[in-house]
Amino acid sequence: VATPGTPPHRGRLDLDEYVEGIRRGDRVVLARAITLVESTLPSDADLAVRLLDALLSETGRSRRVGITGVPGVGKSTFIDALGMHIVRGRGERVAVLTVDPSSAISGGSILGDKVRMETLANEPGAFVRPSASRGRLGGVAAHTREAILLCEAAGYRNVLVETVGVGQSETAVRSMTDFFLLLMLPGAGDELQGVKRGIMEVVDAVAITKVDGDNRPGAERARAEYRSALHLFPASPDGWIPRVLMCSALTGEGIAEIWQMVLEHHEQQNASGHLQTRRSRQAVDWMHELIGRELERRFQSHPAVADVLPGLEDDVAQGRMVSRAAAREALTRFGL
Amino acid sequence: VATPGTPPHRGRLDLDEYVEGIRRGDRVVLARAITLVESTLPSDADLAVRLLDALLSETGRSRRVGITGVPGVGKSTFIDALGMHIVRGRGERVAVLTVDPSSAISGGSILGDKVRMETLANEPGAFVRPSASRGRLGGVAAHTREAILLCEAAGYRNVLVETVGVGQSETAVRSMTDFFLLLMLPGAGDELQGVKRGIMEVVDAVAITKVDGDNRPGAERARAEYRSALHLFPASPDGWIPRVLMCSALTGEGIAEIWQMVLEHHEQQNASGHLQTRRSRQAVDWMHELIGRELERRFQSHPAVADVLPGLEDDVAQGRMVSRAAAREALTRFGL
Repeated sequence: VATPGTPPHRGRLDLDEYVEGIRRGDRVVLARAITLVESTLPSDADLAVRLLDALLSETGRSRRVGITGVPGVGKSTFIDALGMHIVRGRGERVAVLTVDPSSAISGGSILGDKVRMETLANEPGAFVRPSASRGRLGGVAAHTREAILLCEAAGYRNVLVETVGVGQSETAVRSMTDFFLLLMLPGAGDELQGVKRGIMEVVDAVAITKVDGDNRPGAERARAEYRSALHLFPASPDGWIPRVLMCSALTGEGIAEIWQMVLEHHEQQNASGHLQTRRSRQAVDWMHELIGRELERRFQSHPAVADVLPGLEDDVAQGRMVSRAAAREALTRFGL
Repeated sequence: VATPGTPPHRGRLDLDEYVEGIRRGDRVVLARAITLVESTLPSDADLAVRLLDALLSETGRSRRVGITGVPGVGKSTFIDALGMHIVRGRGERVAVLTVDPSSAISGGSILGDKVRMETLANEPGAFVRPSASRGRLGGVAAHTREAILLCEAAGYRNVLVETVGVGQSETAVRSMTDFFLLLMLPGAGDELQGVKRGIMEVVDAVAITKVDGDNRPGAERARAEYRSALHLFPASPDGWIPRVLMCSALTGEGIAEIWQMVLEHHEQQNASGHLQTRRSRQAVDWMHELIGRELERRFQSHPAVADVLPGLEDDVAQGRMVSRAAAREALTRFGL
């Protein structure tokens, strides 16, 4: 027998059920609400927008932290440890979301998600959402952005957004969070092949992971090198100077210090007004991004355009046609 | 009395006059052809596209070099010296183009352009085009992209594209060139405020300027620091490892060495196929960018959209409306 608010069937709840469930922090309703905003069914879109609208005034009160790093750096273990520190050490609730466009392509990380963050996932104060596994990155990132709002409305004061670092996912996650943390392996330089170019310059902090045992000397060197490199980057307009820290999810070293830094950043950015500025800009940019994507989608799915677009792309790539001529041709086919 | 091909009036030439004039390397016709592709008049667009189309098979045979750096770093003096080295030292022709969105706003650099690169501008083997001064960056960058093609058709084997580094101009210039050079002042760190974040990681080389007299010790330190920092960046997929060089436009030191590096890069990238890959991708990306901009322009200038868009942006920025709801509202007004 289903308990109210947590029906076992896969159908939709009605608006009030979602709103009330989220307000009382029901994790099952929260999960189903995220499924709703993730849905690409037009019939779900109206309800999703009404739900977000109903909860909007209850959003915004969290620290939104983006976390990235190459495979093997230990993201899940780190987030598990950081989440446990927030829940047990600080007595606060934490939500963990993941942006993983690769799971949409390969399905590869879905199995992984089931066994990841086991400790944290069993905590009553934690909400761990497996990777969105549908659609293009644009879709995945869109859902995550709205999932943050739902988590906030459900009372989570801390939202960690993990990105697997595929494609544009780092840029997407940075554009929906307040603080962007890059995890790096000890042994500077070797693993940089996998970090997206341009990311190093926009991180708020680098945390060197797995600093235990034999890794310590390499980690110390890496820290010194990253510190000196970050000092050469253009300063952020928000006045924050990126830091380099060391940690070990195994021993727990550095985890509290990293979270302390996030809290300090949040306080500083909030007091200076930069937090609100950043969030407002993110939201408006996102609105324009959504508009641009819908226009592009309509354009590319127009039969007369779809007929010629691959050929035009090939002509342009092979130097048989200038970009402007090809663009005009496609736009003409669209009726512009 | 006007000589054929170089009429003094401001009207348009016909297609053959442009084509023939450019083919014989007539700088006056080349300048007028660039004015044509820069034009935003719909009546000019057809002729511009036909002109580019007619010359397309004669394009692509240049080294396209983007050069950036903050105001005061000595871009004009550097380009003057580099251009003279190419013309006098190497016996080749060089074209210099500038992307300067600020001139569209303030008109500020137009006066400057007239007295800049004086030595080079008086060389018969050089073509120096003052800043495009019209339109938004998008427009300016679009014109520069096509101006490169015209210069190539006019026989220029070397095209230097200077950017003043305002707004998105660095990204725009990087996306139309083969090699991207960042000029830096001696005294590492101090001037980084003005460099756009994320640029350091995508440069092909850093050249420290004004390395003469008292500046030398600071420059040596800066070189060591940048070298060590660049080594920490993710490697470029094209296999090129960014270099740090020193130069002085005053004494001429390092200028030949910098050009030698560009030649080496060009040869290497050409042999590996990365040059063609990069250019093909740039051209296809640009085609999609032009399509996206035109769709956006149509959207934003639609009366029913223009009526509500500023209000929606404000609602989203102030947290009174979610991005998705605002995007839907605007798209509905557009008829989608």
